[in-house]
Amino acid sequence: MPKMMMVGLEYGSDIMDAIRGVAADRSIDSGFFSVIGALSSANLAYYDQTEKVYRKRSFEGAYEIASCTGNISLKDGERFIHAHIVLADENYNLIGGHLLGGRIFAAELHITDLEEKAHVRDYDPVTGLFLWRRS
Amino acid sequence: MPKMMMVGLEYGSDIMDAIRGVAADRSIDSGFFSVIGALSSANLAYYDQTEKVYRKRSFEGAYEIASCTGNISLKDGERFIHAHIVLADENYNLIGGHLLGGRIFAAELHITDLEEKAHVRDYDPVTGLFLWRRS
Amino acid sequence: MPKMMMVGLEYGSDIMDAIRGVAADRSIDSGFFSVIGALSSANLAYYDQTEKVYRKRSFEGAYEIASCTGNISLKDGERFIHAHIVLADENYNLIGGHLLGGRIFAAELHITDLEEKAHVRDYDPVTGLFLWRRS
Repeated sequence: MPKMMMVGLEYGSDIMDAIRGVAADRSIDSGFFSVIGALSSANLAYYDQTEKVYRKRSFEGAYEIASCTGNISLKDGERFIHAHIVLADENYNLIGGHLLGGRIFAAELHITDLEEKAHVRDYDPVTGLFLWRRS
Repeated sequence: MPKMMMVGLEYGSDIMDAIRGVAADRSIDSGFFSVIGALSSANLAYYDQTEKVYRKRSFEGAYEIASCTGNISLKDGERFIHAHIVLADENYNLIGGHLLGGRIFAAELHITDLEEKAHVRDYDPVTGLFLWRRS
Repeated sequence: MPKMMMVGLEYGSDIMDAIRGVAADRSIDSGFFSVIGALSSANLAYYDQTEKVYRKRSFEGAYEIASCTGNISLKDGERFIHAHIVLADENYNLIGGHLLGGRIFAAELHITDLEEKAHVRDYDPVTGLFLWRRS
């Protein structure tokens, strides 16, 4: 039976670590989530589909988390968080992409624990990504 | 047991009032939601993390709701809606931030009622925001 | 009883077809979803609220799916997918709007099957859109 909950994430923590912490505390190995709030810095990535590598960039400054969506599954036997984010600056302009991390100013997590056998990520040679194994 | 539902919101209403109305009609004090649709005006805010005040701006014009995510909890004993939004204009350019309100052209709400004891917001001196009390 | 699941969508498929396929395979007539991943092309639309027509534009290139939200209901007796999307390019700049289609590079779907009588879309003369019939 799926379980849903809302959790306030801690000021000053890294957002990816904080989500991983909630999943660890509640033993969530399979689930999905959204987050709203604000960050005081962010590390984003963009996947180069031709070169098959992630490009990375750090953004300093205060941003609203306009949207953040992600999921929890297993990679190399460990709990793995995959999340994408949209950030708004003081002029309401947006940036976004694959979320690597970022310092939490305030963040509210809405999370669904599927309480099922976890999806497992395997290397996919076509994309160069670790994708869910076909079940 | 959580309950999930989809609700069409009324043309011409304010989006925050409409979400509040759905929550009131169904007695949802704890939950989270997403919305897609379109607005014909929007009031957004950006939280200044240094000055600890919300900056506000009104946007006139027709926008797609590219994303809208939020939650329901209690503040000062009243049901309180917290939502962030991403809006797309006719050139597919985006703006976004903290949602104060906006006139609905069309809006489809996907809402999860956690049917649990409501989260309560308290003033947090570190951020200047009203955050969920630690339970 | 609502059912929630996560499904990896197939490389090279059209994202709207792929979501429709998941809904068909699992007989989901009423539900909502989010998606993260990446596209290698996208077809977006913007609804002109005055002229009551969709403007369309195609975007070639590799984009992260920064956010994608949608729902499933019935229109003309057929399963109908309605989705909005936010896409991030290599410079972390975003575009977005109503999603018509796009080629999947990788996509992870989080979907909730409401397992209830489906919402039905009817033509709404005020907006020119097909909106959920009041129940």
